[in-house]
Amino acid sequence: MDKAILLIMDGLGDLPTPKTALQKAKKPNLDKLAKEGITGLLSPVGRGVVPGSDTSHLRILGYEPKICYPGRGPLEALGIGFGLKEGDVAFRANFATLKNGVIIDRRAGRIETANASTLSKLVSMKIEDVDVIFRNSVEHRGALVLRGPGLSSCISETDPHSNAGVLECMPEDDSQEAAKTARIVNKFTEIVQKKLSEAPENKARESKGLPPANIIFLRGAGTFSSVPSFYERFGISGACVAGGALYRGVAKFIGMDIFLVPGATGDKNTNLKAKGEAAIKALETHDFIFLHVKATDSFSHDGDCAGKARFIERVDKELIPILMESGANLIVTGDHSTPCSRKEHSGHEVPILIYGSGERADHVKKFDEISCMDGGLGHITGKHLMPIFLNVLGKAKKFGS
Amino acid sequence: MDKAILLIMDGLGDLPTPKTALQKAKKPNLDKLAKEGITGLLSPVGRGVVPGSDTSHLRILGYEPKICYPGRGPLEALGIGFGLKEGDVAFRANFATLKNGVIIDRRAGRIETANASTLSKLVSMKIEDVDVIFRNSVEHRGALVLRGPGLSSCISETDPHSNAGVLECMPEDDSQEAAKTARIVNKFTEIVQKKLSEAPENKARESKGLPPANIIFLRGAGTFSSVPSFYERFGISGACVAGGALYRGVAKFIGMDIFLVPGATGDKNTNLKAKGEAAIKALETHDFIFLHVKATDSFSHDGDCAGKARFIERVDKELIPILMESGANLIVTGDHSTPCSRKEHSGHEVPILIYGSGERADHVKKFDEISCMDGGLGHITGKHLMPIFLNVLGKAKKFGS
Repeated sequence: MDKAILLIMDGLGDLPTPKTALQKAKKPNLDKLAKEGITGLLSPVGRGVVPGSDTSHLRILGYEPKICYPGRGPLEALGIGFGLKEGDVAFRANFATLKNGVIIDRRAGRIETANASTLSKLVSMKIEDVDVIFRNSVEHRGALVLRGPGLSSCISETDPHSNAGVLECMPEDDSQEAAKTARIVNKFTEIVQKKLSEAPENKARESKGLPPANIIFLRGAGTFSSVPSFYERFGISGACVAGGALYRGVAKFIGMDIFLVPGATGDKNTNLKAKGEAAIKALETHDFIFLHVKATDSFSHDGDCAGKARFIERVDKELIPILMESGANLIVTGDHSTPCSRKEHSGHEVPILIYGSGERADHVKKFDEISCMDGGLGHITGKHLMPIFLNVLGKAKKFGS
Repeated sequence: MDKAILLIMDGLGDLPTPKTALQKAKKPNLDKLAKEGITGLLSPVGRGVVPGSDTSHLRILGYEPKICYPGRGPLEALGIGFGLKEGDVAFRANFATLKNGVIIDRRAGRIETANASTLSKLVSMKIEDVDVIFRNSVEHRGALVLRGPGLSSCISETDPHSNAGVLECMPEDDSQEAAKTARIVNKFTEIVQKKLSEAPENKARESKGLPPANIIFLRGAGTFSSVPSFYERFGISGACVAGGALYRGVAKFIGMDIFLVPGATGDKNTNLKAKGEAAIKALETHDFIFLHVKATDSFSHDGDCAGKARFIERVDKELIPILMESGANLIVTGDHSTPCSRKEHSGHEVPILIYGSGERADHVKKFDEISCMDGGLGHITGKHLMPIFLNVLGKAKKFGS
């Protein structure tokens, strides 16, 4: 079949303690794919380089982040449904709780999404000649977009990353654009703080003893600039099945279609079966399915190697069989390592397997960091992947004649 | 521990005769590091490329020699203690013996260092508006620096590389700067020949039947231009322990601190224990220690494979245990291969091992050119090393978010 599913298990790679989560997990299906397919080790961005999830996904999907990375803000904004225009400056945004000038809860008590939606209606506005548009996503999370002439993302963030006060936004170069954008952000901070403090929803929260969502802070500023679509670049149609906003945002940024899946939450209790079925559905209309699961990374950031191994077992049992039945070529890898021993991303290679009917198989019998050292793909980096995928699909354009 | 020692055994890689020196040597400690660590093969500059020691060390330490290689002269000058200024033109310089216009001893009978120091005082001078500064190092060796306006290193050398006469220095482009520099070099040659021939020290040598050090010839011209320091580039502090001037010069060029070690001679009888102890001392104040031993290369240039193997055994017994006790991450490799069968540098890959607590281990059990072909690092080049080191240290900056 000339179609493929790329399954990214976020933060999959690990370090031994003394085994890695992949080594610990019972995963007969993934091991079967490794045994019957070809394996190797992937450095998503470059050998030893520690990737963010955003840059890594761009690179894996064929886009050089050094050239086209728009910053985290625009990708998150796209992921939660914003339609961005050229020159928009976008941020990740959070509701939080401010008391006596100090942030006392960075998540406003993980405010319920419906409550946050009501408050959101108060915080879009026009400042000078710029539309300031806020949209909430899940719980305290959201994105903010500035749309208007003469903006810049060369500005500092207002997120204090600690229980300090909201930071003043400062221009980070000498341009008029940066000065204007910083001024608008600071005005926004001032206005939302006033509006949110007076909002009936927050009065109600306070009367119930809940922390009010009385401030929004911003980080990850980036300027949106469109790129040639996945289809234009590679001649195949792409679809995305992902719970997390960022991953949907990356897919939307490169012009993939998004398949929304009820129960695909992007967290540890995500509905893997529903995601698998959505991927199979997407295969009917698309050549290439980018399927993302997040919880491997979440367990790693918690330092929970046993939880990571159990989640891998769930993927193996609940998701992989659905994908295997599809008859599509399968690629399984991660976007980076997140060793449980470090609780953060690292630059260690990630195992990768490619399983396709009629493709070569190597001698590797298990899918893990150590076994895949001997894999027939060797050591590859993100830039190699799209050419390899297209070649497996028989859709690569010949260079020369 | 988030610190590392990089041990470079110069010219380490070899070709089989029928075994390589690494295969011949009994080296239980290096083999233990290979067994418990991860190994691979390194092409310091690029696959198949034959590196000089200077370019190779720059590349291994994170500097692209195609961009910043200043030539051998400035590196040697830095290594023997010159403080170079932007635009200085520096040379490697040698005392030699001239008789009837022909060099009869390229090393002036390996003149004693103290004797050379006395003669050195005669040969710094001003020519036109240029300061000409000579400094001797060990025996007949030294460096010459030209400091002044409008100089160029696009000139030929005066070293005949045979028992001919001293060569006239010629400009190698049409610039005024090259013409001026060549004129100054030729004037220098003329003046030093006269001054040295008349020097009492040389008269004394002749009366004892020793060859007079009556000429200085120059090679390896290069223009000094500073580069961002190792700390600026990588955010970690670096220190160097090395006997040879070139290696100290490379380290000084990139802003590492130099730890001088009595008995670290850079030759076959170097005090390995003292060097190991200096590295441990340096670890107290620095994150990354570049530790260099030279004799593996010297034995290779002599075609003495048994001597090379014996020296590796000395390193294994006298140096490696000290490094292992430090608890630092250890990286062991060479700057290039110098096969004993060729007696010169080659472009064959060099084995490399990385041993760090909590890092992945591969299946390789011995540290040699053949065993490391199966290593979990695969085939890497010099440009991969600093990202890999920083990742092992947990000090890499994330690309993206």
